[in-house]
Amino acid sequence: MKIPQDLFSEFDLETGSLKGAPLIVRRLSDLQGSFADTKAYEAALKRGDPIIYTVAAMQDVEGEGGLHFGLGRIMPGNIGGEYHLTKGHIHSHRPASEVYIGLKGEGMMLLEDERTGESAVLGLKPSTAVYVPGHTFHRTVNTGSGPLVYIGVYPANAGHDYGAIAERNFRKVIVAREGKPLLLPREDFLKQINRS
Amino acid sequence: MKIPQDLFSEFDLETGSLKGAPLIVRRLSDLQGSFADTKAYEAALKRGDPIIYTVAAMQDVEGEGGLHFGLGRIMPGNIGGEYHLTKGHIHSHRPASEVYIGLKGEGMMLLEDERTGESAVLGLKPSTAVYVPGHTFHRTVNTGSGPLVYIGVYPANAGHDYGAIAERNFRKVIVAREGKPLLLPREDFLKQINRS
Repeated sequence: MKIPQDLFSEFDLETGSLKGAPLIVRRLSDLQGSFADTKAYEAALKRGDPIIYTVAAMQDVEGEGGLHFGLGRIMPGNIGGEYHLTKGHIHSHRPASEVYIGLKGEGMMLLEDERTGESAVLGLKPSTAVYVPGHTFHRTVNTGSGPLVYIGVYPANAGHDYGAIAERNFRKVIVAREGKPLLLPREDFLKQINRS
Repeated sequence: MKIPQDLFSEFDLETGSLKGAPLIVRRLSDLQGSFADTKAYEAALKRGDPIIYTVAAMQDVEGEGGLHFGLGRIMPGNIGGEYHLTKGHIHSHRPASEVYIGLKGEGMMLLEDERTGESAVLGLKPSTAVYVPGHTFHRTVNTGSGPLVYIGVYPANAGHDYGAIAERNFRKVIVAREGKPLLLPREDFLKQINRS
């Protein structure tokens, strides 16, 4: 057996880096269309273009039975009350699931079944695991006051489909209400914004 | 989507438990044939039958694209100088790989390619991940002074084959030498024991 160094990965909860993997950086300007409140988004972008999250993924292995894994790190904050979030995706190979493990900070996974449209929200923090079934859009949200760091493990053949959800976005949003996260239908949140 | 509670798992690094999963307990008496030094093993068994490790695994999901995951917790110690270890296994579905993530303590993964017999040893501690390729026997070893806790994620169709390695055991051992772990061929270690 070639026991290459790449069987062993060190990661850094403080920087979000994963040795041997490229660090993908998503700034506010990369998240056009992800936040519900477009006015708040444009206003924030005028003030600056901070890093919202990073992802570093080991995706070298191919073939049936192989696995990939990625380290995600989301900075704390919100845009128009909606907590910092990842773009969200569904696996190109729809049956592929994913296991998320919380490593640092406090957040939530927003799930949405592509077939039924039903949503669910599950806590993500150290000593918790969230199972994302196949056929499910999933987005990670930082509801805490510090960075949220987690690892996701998925089949090597999963693939990432960002387009399917980017077109219409998730049906639910996770917003700060009196300092606590609240799950709301996107439509209701948009009505509230327009009333105010 | 039914969003059952079982998409969310809490685990406990202090007890090794994983909410919703049975806790499998492996005592010294369950590890007949795993440690190289059989005299030291029999002598230890006369003194008591302590828990060597526990495993709690979420294995409900079935089908292609599904994943299972398990929390392992190995107590510190050694038998005849050989660090506390798991029985070790290979996946029944040989191409199935596994990602191990260290959560607490300090240990090592001992890998052995079923096809070539080659071995490798990789560190396992918090902020490290070890990739176990398909067709590979793997055993976890606690080389630290406290419990070693880790999580392993593997395809739902992997299956556990304990028999293939139980028959002949791993070709290498990880033993304490001046308080540090040393990788030795089993045969060399057995010769050393018999000389002393």
